[in-house]
Amino acid sequence: MHFNTSQDPSDERWTEVMLIARSLLNQLLTTDLPLPSDPILPILDTSELPSLQDKIMPDDHPRDPVSILQQAMTLFDYHIHHTHPHSFAYIPACPIPIARLGALLTSVCNVNVANWDASSGPSEVEKAMIHWLGSQLGLPDSVGGCFVSGGSMANMTAIVAARDEKLQPLQRANATIYMSDQTHLSVMKALHIAGFMDYQVHKIPTDDNCCMDVNLLRHAIKTDRLFGRVPFLLVANCGSTNTGTIDPLHELADIARDEGLWLHVDGAYGASIALSDKHRHLVDGIGRADSVSWDGHKWLFQTYGCGIVLTRHVNSLARSFSFDAEYITGPLEPQATTSFYKLGPELSRPARAMSLWLTLKVLGRRRVGEMIDQGFLLTCTADHSIRQCKNWIIPVPTVASIVVFRYAPPGFSEEELDSLNSAISQRIVAENIASILTTQIRGRTTLRMCAMNPAVQPETISEVISRVDKVAQAEASKVKKTYPKMSNGLCSPLISCCVVEASDHA
Amino acid sequence: MHFNTSQDPSDERWTEVMLIARSLLNQLLTTDLPLPSDPILPILDTSELPSLQDKIMPDDHPRDPVSILQQAMTLFDYHIHHTHPHSFAYIPACPIPIARLGALLTSVCNVNVANWDASSGPSEVEKAMIHWLGSQLGLPDSVGGCFVSGGSMANMTAIVAARDEKLQPLQRANATIYMSDQTHLSVMKALHIAGFMDYQVHKIPTDDNCCMDVNLLRHAIKTDRLFGRVPFLLVANCGSTNTGTIDPLHELADIARDEGLWLHVDGAYGASIALSDKHRHLVDGIGRADSVSWDGHKWLFQTYGCGIVLTRHVNSLARSFSFDAEYITGPLEPQATTSFYKLGPELSRPARAMSLWLTLKVLGRRRVGEMIDQGFLLTCTADHSIRQCKNWIIPVPTVASIVVFRYAPPGFSEEELDSLNSAISQRIVAENIASILTTQIRGRTTLRMCAMNPAVQPETISEVISRVDKVAQAEASKVKKTYPKMSNGLCSPLISCCVVEASDHA
Repeated sequence: MHFNTSQDPSDERWTEVMLIARSLLNQLLTTDLPLPSDPILPILDTSELPSLQDKIMPDDHPRDPVSILQQAMTLFDYHIHHTHPHSFAYIPACPIPIARLGALLTSVCNVNVANWDASSGPSEVEKAMIHWLGSQLGLPDSVGGCFVSGGSMANMTAIVAARDEKLQPLQRANATIYMSDQTHLSVMKALHIAGFMDYQVHKIPTDDNCCMDVNLLRHAIKTDRLFGRVPFLLVANCGSTNTGTIDPLHELADIARDEGLWLHVDGAYGASIALSDKHRHLVDGIGRADSVSWDGHKWLFQTYGCGIVLTRHVNSLARSFSFDAEYITGPLEPQATTSFYKLGPELSRPARAMSLWLTLKVLGRRRVGEMIDQGFLLTCTADHSIRQCKNWIIPVPTVASIVVFRYAPPGFSEEELDSLNSAISQRIVAENIASILTTQIRGRTTLRMCAMNPAVQPETISEVISRVDKVAQAEASKVKKTYPKMSNGLCSPLISCCVVEASDHA
Repeated sequence: MHFNTSQDPSDERWTEVMLIARSLLNQLLTTDLPLPSDPILPILDTSELPSLQDKIMPDDHPRDPVSILQQAMTLFDYHIHHTHPHSFAYIPACPIPIARLGALLTSVCNVNVANWDASSGPSEVEKAMIHWLGSQLGLPDSVGGCFVSGGSMANMTAIVAARDEKLQPLQRANATIYMSDQTHLSVMKALHIAGFMDYQVHKIPTDDNCCMDVNLLRHAIKTDRLFGRVPFLLVANCGSTNTGTIDPLHELADIARDEGLWLHVDGAYGASIALSDKHRHLVDGIGRADSVSWDGHKWLFQTYGCGIVLTRHVNSLARSFSFDAEYITGPLEPQATTSFYKLGPELSRPARAMSLWLTLKVLGRRRVGEMIDQGFLLTCTADHSIRQCKNWIIPVPTVASIVVFRYAPPGFSEEELDSLNSAISQRIVAENIASILTTQIRGRTTLRMCAMNPAVQPETISEVISRVDKVAQAEASKVKKTYPKMSNGLCSPLISCCVVEASDHA
């Protein structure tokens, strides 16, 4: 199978390709963390982008595989390194070696888990995983679902099923969806894909803990019904990306039951807490959901592309996603088996359940739970360290593995503090101290960190916070020095005000 | 980074895990084909499924990684082996070693290509690939798009963009979509997700070549307008999954232009033909599309999970999929860069462009085109071999890498021939001769083979056809022997009539 001479095993270039492949394998399975001095977030120089585009564009001709592989590795290095011990931006997913090995195995076998008869082994593994994950959340034995590419597709799959289950076609235009102002943007995107308009979404304000205000929710539903709207879907956060907030799941489940709404819980990040003996109580009630989104590549330590949608209404999934089922049954597909293309939006797709299964079988649920606990410990450490420093505010109680904190020394207006916190984040990133970006909490710019790398120790976190505090002091005194008469409410022109809404990333 | 003692590098089990990993790597990069005697489609014994579920279910406790890995490899083996030289079912995707190496690299780096600043290297590669692929099809320089998980998501992304571009919200209920009766089911699924009803789809009959009948299309559009419906979307096949058919792209582009419709070309399988010097003319006109779906894991020799959506209206994609853009811009994201989460339905996702880029850079466009030509050659060989055997019908002219053929000896009714062809397929599969399943052509059961493995030689195909012919003769004489007085139009009770509509798989 010689695609060109340079891939011929007798060719010396092939030997070199194999050497590179071996070193990649070692990287894949390494248990070593990057050093603190390694760059966390290398970014391409934008002035070089046009010439880079020219250079990387393929053409008619073959190229030396070794030099192209080296170019690929160089290019690939320009990304945020979530395995770095000081990586705290977005949701810093850290795949563990056994999960990476699972990803390798998945590539080797390259199975398409569309229909059962062409993938009976991986399909049975996916079936087992759906049931096992559902049982961990307290969903009934009849739970169904499938693996998708991530939380966005999981939310979309659940929303389409809810729409088809709860609404007659003519009701769609008046249908109303409830979610908090902390809900991930992928839910809005999924609603848009499913044909709903922005004005059909009723965003419910949150309380001091960033949890959905259930009284306002009840009021909104009542009022909407009076105006002829058709409430049908309630989306709850189980670990918001912005602050880690878990909405009051039991109360929302009660409301959903009383009002006949479909309760979808976005647990892309937080559903994993159910695997922890120590913290499971925080997500109590998640099993009362009609559907749940859950990401393996967030807090289950998998590589990207491992999303899960679970529902107690497997027939709803089948109704929404089984097309031409009378013709598609393979010649060898027995009745009791599951062909996953009938339960989700895709047909051909990778065997996404396999590496998660491998991880859970090898480590066991308890050990995975302890790795999740480590994230709680790290973030608790961050919270304590911040409170020991002067002039810091933690505007929302720390939950799960996310802490938000704002530097607020006296003598600055709120707007000046926004700029100051942006400047602190930028300097921390520029000096490779840590990837701590900013988010918005009640309209104010706030630092945010998410610590979930199970190989990181609490001392590392304390040290990072100590350095962040020093940077904050330095930035504040720099501002004071440059603008001794500040506090006039105007934004310093020297401090650009770039923010990133963390809830927008996942 | 020791997650449990069995992953400790000092542990002897870890050494064994590494040995397994090395052997997986060798499998990943092998240039050897499976032997003809290797099983093509191993399927789990259904009587053992309940106990298998019990056995594979994870629990609280860790397990020996070596034995779990071995269990994983055993389970993974139960799937259709598309690299087998006699694998012709569905679209038998054959990833080549350089693509598999790219998949390994993608796993190692585990980059999330959501926003540019966190993935500038892979984002620039994806940008280059979108432009390069678009230029191969003749799309304008302003082409935009993104990588998605496969053709289903590519079709969905394009359909949502077309809906938002072409329709006012109040027009949606009267909107009409045109496609041929050979269109892939993922288009119907995508339309359903996007909120359209089945009755809004106007399926246009096909001619003797399985191409959309353009006169009937013109007539349908005219009539629909008279009845107040709003034509807005025309979906063309560029390589249907069922028969490889390419709709008359220029004529459809003319109609779309004249009628103001969005022309979406489903080229998941067939767009790759544009890379072949020899056969490019077959897809002439594809560059006039408003949007195109294209799968790397079909005829570009990638592993699963490599779909592409391209459009000349990149602003439409941005309008449909950019949410909360005012907050999401990262602190470091320059203006001229592309954050791909703004152009598609997902946020976190793997760097899907990377292995396709590696493949095209190392091999060059011409060599990839020649590998595609090999599929044409193999299928042409199959067509010729079938015509040399007695009593076979090729009901649709062979196109691209797909041939459909029906055994039709005299003395059988059409219904009996349906059963006979099903029986032939089942025996071919059962005896591991080849994976040749059946499809429906104009309501009749027909064998179907898709040959696209560039490492297979034409002689192999001739031999397979010769064996298929022998099986066909044997099955026919068996039926005659068992039911000497058949031809009464009744289906033999001994031959079960299971069919698989190939267009339903991809």
